[in-house]
Formats: sequence, C-alpha cells, structure tokens
Amino acid sequence: MPTLTLPQTLIEQLSSQFGQRFSQGESNCLQHGRDESVHEPMLPSAVVFAENIEEIALTVTLCAAHGVPVIPYGVGSSVEGHVLAPKGGISLDLSGMNQIVAIHAEDGDATVQAGVTRKQLNDALKGTGLFFPIDPGADATLGGMAATRASGTNAVRYGTMRDNVMATTTVLADGRIMKTGGRARKSSAGYDLTRLLVGSEGTLGIMAELTVKLYPIPEAISAAVCTFPDIDSAVQTVIQTIQLGVPVARIELLDALSLKAINIFSKTTLAEAPTLFFEFHGSPASVAEQAETVQTIADDLGGTHFEWAARPEDRSRLWQARHDAYFACLQLKPGCRCFPTDVCVPISRLAECIAATYEDIAQVSIPIALFGHVGDGNFHLVVLVDTANEKEMAEAAWISQRVVERAIAMEGTCTGEHGIGLGKRKYLPLEHGNVAVDVMRAIKTALDPHHLLNPGKVLP
Amino acid sequence: MPTLTLPQTLIEQLSSQFGQRFSQGESNCLQHGRDESVHEPMLPSAVVFAENIEEIALTVTLCAAHGVPVIPYGVGSSVEGHVLAPKGGISLDLSGMNQIVAIHAEDGDATVQAGVTRKQLNDALKGTGLFFPIDPGADATLGGMAATRASGTNAVRYGTMRDNVMATTTVLADGRIMKTGGRARKSSAGYDLTRLLVGSEGTLGIMAELTVKLYPIPEAISAAVCTFPDIDSAVQTVIQTIQLGVPVARIELLDALSLKAINIFSKTTLAEAPTLFFEFHGSPASVAEQAETVQTIADDLGGTHFEWAARPEDRSRLWQARHDAYFACLQLKPGCRCFPTDVCVPISRLAECIAATYEDIAQVSIPIALFGHVGDGNFHLVVLVDTANEKEMAEAAWISQRVVERAIAMEGTCTGEHGIGLGKRKYLPLEHGNVAVDVMRAIKTALDPHHLLNPGKVLP
Repeated sequence: MPTLTLPQTLIEQLSSQFGQRFSQGESNCLQHGRDESVHEPMLPSAVVFAENIEEIALTVTLCAAHGVPVIPYGVGSSVEGHVLAPKGGISLDLSGMNQIVAIHAEDGDATVQAGVTRKQLNDALKGTGLFFPIDPGADATLGGMAATRASGTNAVRYGTMRDNVMATTTVLADGRIMKTGGRARKSSAGYDLTRLLVGSEGTLGIMAELTVKLYPIPEAISAAVCTFPDIDSAVQTVIQTIQLGVPVARIELLDALSLKAINIFSKTTLAEAPTLFFEFHGSPASVAEQAETVQTIADDLGGTHFEWAARPEDRSRLWQARHDAYFACLQLKPGCRCFPTDVCVPISRLAECIAATYEDIAQVSIPIALFGHVGDGNFHLVVLVDTANEKEMAEAAWISQRVVERAIAMEGTCTGEHGIGLGKRKYLPLEHGNVAVDVMRAIKTALDPHHLLNPGKVLP
Repeated sequence: MPTLTLPQTLIEQLSSQFGQRFSQGESNCLQHGRDESVHEPMLPSAVVFAENIEEIALTVTLCAAHGVPVIPYGVGSSVEGHVLAPKGGISLDLSGMNQIVAIHAEDGDATVQAGVTRKQLNDALKGTGLFFPIDPGADATLGGMAATRASGTNAVRYGTMRDNVMATTTVLADGRIMKTGGRARKSSAGYDLTRLLVGSEGTLGIMAELTVKLYPIPEAISAAVCTFPDIDSAVQTVIQTIQLGVPVARIELLDALSLKAINIFSKTTLAEAPTLFFEFHGSPASVAEQAETVQTIADDLGGTHFEWAARPEDRSRLWQARHDAYFACLQLKPGCRCFPTDVCVPISRLAECIAATYEDIAQVSIPIALFGHVGDGNFHLVVLVDTANEKEMAEAAWISQRVVERAIAMEGTCTGEHGIGLGKRKYLPLEHGNVAVDVMRAIKTALDPHHLLNPGKVLP
C-alpha cells in the first residue's frame, strides 16, 4: 500500500492531462516501487508516463500544488532504492522520453532525452565513428545514469557521468525549466549546476534532457583475459598498470566464484580463478604497446593464460559475460536477492582493502562474489541473500558495514557508482562529515523547500 | 578609498590575533585591490595574511559578526576583477598558505594549501615521475586556479581544474570548516560539493586546502611549431586534429601580431604569421605517430616550417614564449592595459567564430592580438587599451561584447577559463538563462546569506 492517498483533484487533473498514461493500477505501482536490490518495495500512489519536458513540468507543478512527492523513474535498474516511494506520490516514468535530440558528430557530443538508454544511443551513433563509453552493467537510461553519477568498466579511461555530461535541461521543484552547462568543452561561467545535478539522484531537479560527450571509436581495440594464482597478484597487476600510467580502457577483476557463475550462466569455459579482463584502445601500435606492458607486469606476478580476443565477436562475448556477472551470480542461489556493496578506495589501498574484505567473507555463511572496476579502485561484493532469512540479512548488513567503514577509513567512498539512495544514507556523514551534509541539506532546501523531489533519498 | 570603514572592535580583534599580518597600510590595500586587467582598482579596507585554515576561519567568523566582506586573494593574477573589493572589507591573502601537505605518488594525487602555486607544486614533484598539468599563463596559486576553474594549454588532454580537483577543505561563510570530495578516483556519494566550489570564485566558501590529480610524466614529449598562410588553415588543422581524436597534449594558435610581440619580448625569430604550437605526450612510438598524423593534416592545409623541438630546453623556450605571449602583447603599446576576452565555442564553430572576430577587429583602431587554446575551442583577444582614452575603452567594450554574444549564440561560453568576476556578470543570464541564474543565487543565499564572501562577484 502506498503511504499517501492522492487528493481527488490531483487524480482528476492527471487523468485529464495524461489519460491512459496516468495509472493507479496495482501492477504499474508494483513495477515502479521496487528496484534490482534487496530493498523492500515501496509503492508509489500512481505512475505518470511522461513524453516530453512540458509533461514533466506539468506533473511536477500539479504535484507541488498538492504537496505530493514525485519520483523520477527510468528503467528501474538502480540498486540502492532510488526509485522507491517511501512517502508514496507519483512515480514519473521517463522511459517514453527516448528521442535522440541531436548528434553533433563534428563536436563529439549528443543531446538526448533522459529516457534514452546507453545501448540506444550507441546504436544511433553507428556510422558516425563515435561511441558513448559509460557502461554500467544494465542498459540503464542516460537520465538514471546521470542521476546516480554512474560509471562502469570504461571509467578508468573515459571517466564517469560526472565527466561526460556537458549540459542538461532540468525541471525544478516548482516546475520551472532550467538549462545548465553548454556545448563548449570548457567554461568558467558561474556555478557548475550540471555537476550539482549529476549524482543528485532526482532530489534537486528532474533531468529531462542531457548533452553528453562522445569519443572516436578507437582505430584498434583488443581485449585480454589473464588468470592469477591468487587475488593479491591480480590486484598488484592492476596497481602497477595504473601507476605506470598505461592508458588501459578497461581493467576488471573477477574472483573465482564470479567466474564459476559466469561459466554456468554464459556457457563459457573460463578458468575459475582470480582473473583480470583487459581492454586496450588506441592506434594499432599503441594498443600493442599497452598490451605488451601489461602482459609483462602480469607475467612477473604469476599471471597465466594471457589470452587475446582481438576479433570483435570474441570481445563482445567476453564483455557480455562480464556485464552478465551480476545476474550470473544471482543464479548461484535461486530466489535470492543481492545485497550490493560498491566501495572505492585510493589504488594504493586496494590490495589491503580487498584482503581484509576476504577475511570478513570468511566469517559469514552466505555466498559472496567479488568483482569490480579495479582500475579506479572500485569493487563490488555480490552478497547473495534470502531476504526472508534474518540470519542471512544480518550477515549481509554486517559485511556491508565492515566494507564501507574500512573504505572510508582508507580515504575512499561508500559508493563508487551506485549512489546513496535509501541504502547508504547513514554513511554520508561518516564519509563527508556533518558540515558537508548540512551544506547538502541547505542546497536541497534552497532548491526543493518542501522536499517533494524524490523524498527520503541521499540525505540522512 | 575603500567603501567601508572597519568597525574599531574588528580592527582590535584582527590586530590582536594577527599582529603584523593585519595591515591597513595603503600600499598593501592598493596591491590587493587590483588585478592584471583593465578593471579600476577597488581597495579593501585592510589585508589579513593567513597562514593556516584556523586563521581563515577566525577571520571569516570575526568579519561575519560585524557584517564585513572577506575577499580571498592568491597572487592577484586574475583578469576579471575577482580580487577587487567593491564593498571594501578584508582582503584575505592566502599566499602564505604555501605548504605541500602530502604527495601520494602511488595514487597520483597531492594535497596542498591554497597558496601553493602550480610551479611550486611541480618543483615539489621532482623525482616522483609525476606532474600537475594545469597551466594558466601566470604562476597562479592552486586556490585561485580552483576558484576560477582555470585551465590553460594542457586542458585539451588533461582537463581543467574542474576535472582535477578531487577534494577540498573549505571555510564556509559562518566560519565552519567543511571537507568535500575525497581521494577515491570516483564516488557517487552525495552532492558534488567539490565541483560546486570549483569555479565559484570565493563566493560560496574559501578553499583552504585542495587535493589535486597528478599524472605520470610522459615517457616521450615532443613539440612542434607550424606556420600557416592564413588563420583559417591553421584553425582547420586544429579542427581535423581534434575530430580525428589525436590525443594531442597542447595545440595553441597564435596570430601574426602575437608572434611579432613574442619575437620582440622573447628575442625569438619565429615567423610572424598564423602559427600553431603543438605538444605530444606518450610513448616514443605514440608521440611519433601523433606527430605524423598532425603533420599530414597541416601539410594538406598549407602548413609550412613544421619545426620540431624534442630537446627539453628547446621545448621549454617555446612554451615559455607561449606563456609570455600575454605580457609580450602588453609591451606592444607601452603603458596600456589588456581588455581580456576569453570565449570558447564548440569546435565545429571555431573557424566561423574566429573569422567573424577578425571582421570585428578590422572595424576598430586599437591593436588586438588573438591566441588561444584552440583544441578546446577557446581563444583570447588581447585588446590593448589606454584606460584613460574613452574612445579606446569604448572600442574594446564593443568588440568584447560582439565576441561574447557571438560565442553564446554558437552554444559557447562567455568565459572559457578566466571566470565571471566583475567583468562578465551581465553575460551570465544571456548564457545560462534567468532560471539557472536564479538557482545560482538561491545557492549563494543558502550558503552565504549575508553575501559577505567576495560580494559583487559572479552573480549579476
């Protein structure tokens, strides 16, 4: 049951404006009140399917007049409860806002509506020689990715959404439409509102359109897989690669359990041992040079089976397997959910952080896989739990807290790319201190005084 | 004369706390009330020379209690009036905060006090194999560079201060000390307060310490100079280089008048014609490959005298000449000041923007040189004026407005790297729209309700 009954006037207004695209139906509310994580569903009172900016502004304006919350929704692939409706209200589904507004190939940027997914954008770029590199595992919407400051496997080379959103068109809490940023590659003109919105999880405004950076498809790409005798030698290979400044495009660590899950799920025959996946981008000579450097490092650290995947179809299969790792792990324990962790630490602390995490893993009974974007110092635990089992949930909460507190003690962060949502709010003061959290709250209040945009998220 | 007489109590408090480091002396006030531009000096009421964060916090707290403005000051190399005191108050000189707090070579970051200059940081990095790439012409403080979101010649490859400040320790308007960001390479934990501070020009808080990214010194570096028959062919060379995705580290355009000024000032014998300066970073093979690609593009467009400077001393001389271009141009007209312009446009509009700018230049009598970081679409006019000559000042204002309005019409920005300060405030609504400016003002009011931090800057 939603926690809020909508005022009858609002129901009539939204029905009259949106017709079939306004729904109080149980299945729609259920679908929009849960995400991909262990968070218990929290249902919105109704769903509006918006198709343009004016409809977002209208919905926000009408809801504001009635003091009703609005929660933006993309495809629901969040894992920290961002799309849940703890106070009820309207789930504003933007998946119908899926128009590519403009591709400026000569400038290397594209403007898209917030509901465009990353794969849709890359499909639209075919023939331009450009691509959009940010790739969280799911085929998330670009609006959702911007809202959570998402990244993924390519971030070590191409940055995160923070670095790649140039401009937005955003609906404010009072329904006004704001433009932020611009298409110049740099600017010193005023406060960086674009960066303030990126990562604000729909709590400061609803991004309706985004302009994002594109990159030339590298002349040459090659991928490699290398197996290690233990996690530490794999991690040391990562650290040395980064410290040498090799411009590797992707460098991903997967542990033995992740590989086992991938082999079952993707019908691959990869060695079930600590493994690094690499990808190199550049000219043919540069790619060869990078790969040679990394292979030398890996060899010195006991890496074996350095296997190449230069053919596009082999690379695709490899990276699809990597992207499926999350779902593959879920299949290890039918009916389970994932209690996600997502810490990121300075690279010099990565080996120590992962080693201590394995000591924690040894203390619990639940299966836990580890993988991550280790070139950035970012890794995830896939903690597999039966949400109805109190002991498992307690173990998961314990290990999550241990990992987060350790990462913060190492000058890292409680979330590298998932966001705060509902799940990490308690760690925000621990990571940033009370003064910074006070300032975040002051900004929230200045922009959304009645706390109607995605209430209950980010701020503790 | 300052516009504000300090309350006697505040004078006594600051005198007692700072002794000789609190000064109401005319020469100190004069030095701190002007910058490198045409802006008329506006003197602070007094100067405080702070040496640590607690002293910044104390000064801000005492001034807040009396409603007295505080204007942070680095080395005064700003060109948009950032350090001027239109309402009097305390100029808070941070140049004594010049400690390098920590260098984490293994993580590629360093924490410095705000008064450390970029050259000082690079000197301190000797022997680590790392460098800090951001290089506005002046040897500015890192605090000042962060405040104005500065960049310079390397930005096309390494980004601007926006991309390279990872964390700050900032004193708020009420004297509280806030930590923002962290040392993890990425984070999705809460609002991006670091990015909000970078480019806020001391109006939201006073950055006292910064953590910045460092980069491995490239294995190979080479520089080149190439002369073109006209500006357009030089600009087309830039555009093609960028569109091909060549990871050039620097690509700078200088026009014939800039070269003439450089030859006089730096005693060089460069051809006095439209010229590109290049620098390539990477492995020896990659540098050779990049240079070859660019030379082919330049050759096709009529570039001549493609000259190499692979020896470090030759490269240094070349880039010193480039960095001295601003001061060299000033010498063309003894006693003059520079009316700066600093627009940045999407690269596809750069040729058109520069061509139209030359048509404007042809309309005025004052000497105007053009150079810039054209790989980003950013260029400057050095408009040489006698500030006492009304006709010259009117011509300068006219051309500045023409260039800014054109850049904004081309989806560019009124300032690529100098900042808004006093000089560009009127263009902020034109560039970002009234709603965004309202939101900036709401944030300013939330963080500094009495508008005591660098009042009169950024917001119109």
